Amino acid sequence: MTVTGTSEGPFGWIGAERDRLRGAGLERGLRPRTADEADAGPLDLAGNDYLGLSRHPEVVAAATGAARRWGAGATGSRLVSGSTTLHAELEAELAEFTGFENALVFSSGYAANLAALTALAGRDALIVSDAANHASLIDGCRLSRAAVAVAPHADPWAVAGALAGRAPGVRRALAVSDTVFSVDGNAAPLPALAAAARAHGAALVLDDAHGFGVVGEGGRGAVHAAGLAGAADVVATVTLSKALGAQGGAVLGPAPVIAHLVSTARTFVFDTGLAPAAAGAALGALRLLRREPERAARAGEAARLLHGRLTAAGLAAARPDAAVVSVRAPSPGAAVRWAADCRRAGLAVGCFRPPSVPDGVSRLRLSARADLAAGELARAAGIVVATAPREAVDGGAVRESPARR
Amino acid sequence: MTVTGTSEGPFGWIGAERDRLRGAGLERGLRPRTADEADAGPLDLAGNDYLGLSRHPEVVAAATGAARRWGAGATGSRLVSGSTTLHAELEAELAEFTGFENALVFSSGYAANLAALTALAGRDALIVSDAANHASLIDGCRLSRAAVAVAPHADPWAVAGALAGRAPGVRRALAVSDTVFSVDGNAAPLPALAAAARAHGAALVLDDAHGFGVVGEGGRGAVHAAGLAGAADVVATVTLSKALGAQGGAVLGPAPVIAHLVSTARTFVFDTGLAPAAAGAALGALRLLRREPERAARAGEAARLLHGRLTAAGLAAARPDAAVVSVRAPSPGAAVRWAADCRRAGLAVGCFRPPSVPDGVSRLRLSARADLAAGELARAAGIVVATAPREAVDGGAVRESPARR
Ligand SMILES: Cc1ncc(COP(=O)(O)O)c(C=O)c1O
Ligand SMILES: Cc1ncc(COP(=O)(O)O)c(C=O)c1O
Repeated sequence: MTVTGTSEGPFGWIGAERDRLRGAGLERGLRPRTADEADAGPLDLAGNDYLGLSRHPEVVAAATGAARRWGAGATGSRLVSGSTTLHAELEAELAEFTGFENALVFSSGYAANLAALTALAGRDALIVSDAANHASLIDGCRLSRAAVAVAPHADPWAVAGALAGRAPGVRRALAVSDTVFSVDGNAAPLPALAAAARAHGAALVLDDAHGFGVVGEGGRGAVHAAGLAGAADVVATVTLSKALGAQGGAVLGPAPVIAHLVSTARTFVFDTGLAPAAAGAALGALRLLRREPERAARAGEAARLLHGRLTAAGLAAARPDAAVVSVRAPSPGAAVRWAADCRRAGLAVGCFRPPSVPDGVSRLRLSARADLAAGELARAAGIVVATAPREAVDGGAVRESPARR
Repeated sequence: MTVTGTSEGPFGWIGAERDRLRGAGLERGLRPRTADEADAGPLDLAGNDYLGLSRHPEVVAAATGAARRWGAGATGSRLVSGSTTLHAELEAELAEFTGFENALVFSSGYAANLAALTALAGRDALIVSDAANHASLIDGCRLSRAAVAVAPHADPWAVAGALAGRAPGVRRALAVSDTVFSVDGNAAPLPALAAAARAHGAALVLDDAHGFGVVGEGGRGAVHAAGLAGAADVVATVTLSKALGAQGGAVLGPAPVIAHLVSTARTFVFDTGLAPAAAGAALGALRLLRREPERAARAGEAARLLHGRLTAAGLAAARPDAAVVSVRAPSPGAAVRWAADCRRAGLAVGCFRPPSVPDGVSRLRLSARADLAAGELARAAGIVVATAPREAVDGGAVRESPARR
C-alpha cells in the first residue's frame, strides 16, 4: 500500500489546508439571510440584482405561474423531457432582445460558459483569454482541452499577438472575454478586441453577464452596444441570475452555432433543464425591462453616483462602466472587517478576496441597483466612507494602480 | 495572418460537423412540450421524475411559496448574498435524511459533481473513475487536473489495482463512481468499491443522483443502503432534479470537507445560489417523501414490472437496480425511429445515443415512476414491445452482453 500523505484518513489534509486559509484571511463562511432582511435588514448592495427585479411582484408572479403550470422541475435534460414551450419562448425573446439569431438556455450562466467554450474549441484550437475573465470562462478553457494563452487584462494588442503567433497545427482560434469584468465593473475594449479577432480569423466569445440588462440601448447589453450582436463570428453568453433576478444562463449566436451546442455541449446534453419557475421569472423580467427600458440606464447612473462619492472621499474606486463599483482594500483581513463594519452600520456589500480577485487585491464590491433612490445611494456611500480603514484613503498603498487602467 | 482551416468565417467548420453528425444519426433537435401534455399528451416515461413529485400540489406550493417569500432569484453567489435560511434548512434536512454530517447545495447536480472533484483532487491526486460514470463526473476529473485512471465498468478489482499502482508522488487518491448508472440503471458494487478504496487509503466519491429518493430505506439512497453514509472517508453527491422533482444538487460529507468546499469549490464560490423556488420545492418534496416513504419502494417495483414484461417479450433490457429500465436498440437510427413510434402510440421514452452511452450502444430509456398504476405500466411495456424493431427482439445482435453484468 502506498503512503497517502495524510495523517487521519484520506481527508486528513483538509485540516492543514483550513489552517492555511485561515491564517491568510481566506477562509469563507456562510451567513444565511432571513426573509425579513429584504425589508427590515441592511440596505443590500451585495447582490447582482441590478434592476431590483428579483422581488418585483410581476417577476415573482411569472415564477409562481410557471411553477403552477409546468411543475417544480423540468424533469429531465433539455433533449429528453426538459424542453417546454416556455423555454422556447424565453429563447426566442432573449435572441430578439439581444440582437442574435438564436439563443439556448442553460441551468446557470456558469454552465452556459462551459458549453460555449467546450463545444466551440477543442484540442485543435487556441483560446486567447483575458487575465481577468470569470472563473466559469477559465474552467471552460480548461475543459475544452484547447491550447490557452492568457492575455494581459484588457489588452487587444496582446490578444492580436497571441492569435498571430499560433502554431500551424491550430485550426480554430477564439478570443474570449468578459464584456464587463465582474470584480471591478470595467468594460472590455470590445471594438479593438473584435478587430484583433477578425484580423486573425478568430471567433469572439463574449460573456455579457454584467452588461446584459444594464448596458446599451434599454439594457440590450454590451455586445449589442458595440455593434457586435448577430455577427457571424460572435457568440455571447448571459446570465438570467443578475439583471433579470432569476436563475440560469444562455448562449446567443448564429443558428448553426446554437444547433451545434444542442447536439454536442456536455452541460446542455447531460444537465437537467432550467426549472420552469426560473425560466418564467426570467421571461417576466425581460418583458418588464422591454416595457420600462429606463431601468437599465438608472442602474448605470446609480453606479456613477456611488463612484463619485467614494472617490471624492479619497477611496480607490474603479470608474464603473456598468452597475458594479469596486473599492480596493488594504488586505483580505481589512476587507472582511470593512464589510462587517458596513453591515453593522446598515449596509450589505460584497467582500472579494483571493481567489475571487484576479490581481490578488481584496475589494469591497457594491452593486448599484436601479430601484434605489438617490438618498439611499448617498447613505450607502456615506457608510462605506465612514467605515473605511485609514490605509484605504488617499495615499494608501492600495490606490488604484495606474498600470491597470 | 494564419490560415484558419475554415471556409466561411471562424464557425465555418460547424457545417461539416453537422453533416457528420447527421450522417451518423447523431444530430439532436429540441422538441418543446406543451403544458397540456402532462394531462392530455403521451404517458411520460422519458424524464427522471421518479416519484412523480414535480407536479405534486404540495411540491408546487412549496416552490411558489418560496418565490413569494424570497424572490425569484438568490441574487448572488452563496458567499455574498445568495445564502438564505431556506438554503440552510434544505442543507440540514438533506444531511439528516441521507445520514451525512453536512450538506452543501448547488445550482445543479452537474455543478455539485464538478465541485466535489475539483475541490478534493488536484495535480497531486489520482482519481480512479468508472468507465460508465456520468459526464459531470468525467468533467470534474478533467477540471481537477488530477491524474485520472479510467477503470473498467463496475470492476472493484480494477479500481484496487489502479489505486495500488499509483506513482510515489501522488499524495491523494479518490475512487469515483455513480451509485446507479444513469444509462442502464444498474447499481455499482458499493461494498467492494469501498473495500478497495479503504485498502489503499483512498477517499470514495459517490454520485447518488439515481439512487437518492428511490433506493434504500424510504429512499435514503444507495450510499445509505450500503452503510457508507456519514463515513469519514466518503463523500456523496445528489441531484434535486430527479426524485425530488425540482432543480439543483448537493454534496454530502463530513463537516470539514463541506467547509473546505465552501471556501474553495469554484462552482460554489463563482456561481449564483440556487433559486428559492427550486430550493423550496426540493425541501417540500423531501418532507413529503419522509411522510410517505413507501413512494421510494413503489418506483423500484414499477421498474421491475416493466423489466419483466420487456424481457418476457425477448427485448434486451438490463435488470433494474433502481427506477431506470433501459432497452438496447440495433443502431442510433433505429433507436430514434423506435422512440418516435412509441410517441405516436402514446408513450414518451428517452432515446440515448452516442455520446450519451458509454459503450456506444443506443438505447431506449424508461423511468418507472412511483405514481403510475400497474395498468399504465403494462400499457407502456406493451407499446415498447409492439413498436420494437425486429432486430431488437431475441437473437438480435443487440442482446445484453454477458460480459457486461
Ligand atoms: C462574468 C460572469 N460570468 C458568469 C457567471 C456565472 O453566472 P451564474 O451565476 O448564472 O452561473 C458570473 C457570476 O456568477 C459572472 O460574474
Ligand atoms: C448520474 C448523474 N449525475 C449528475 C447529473 C446532473 O444532475 P443535474 O441534472 O441536476 O445537473 C445527472 C443528470 O442530469 C446524472 O444522471
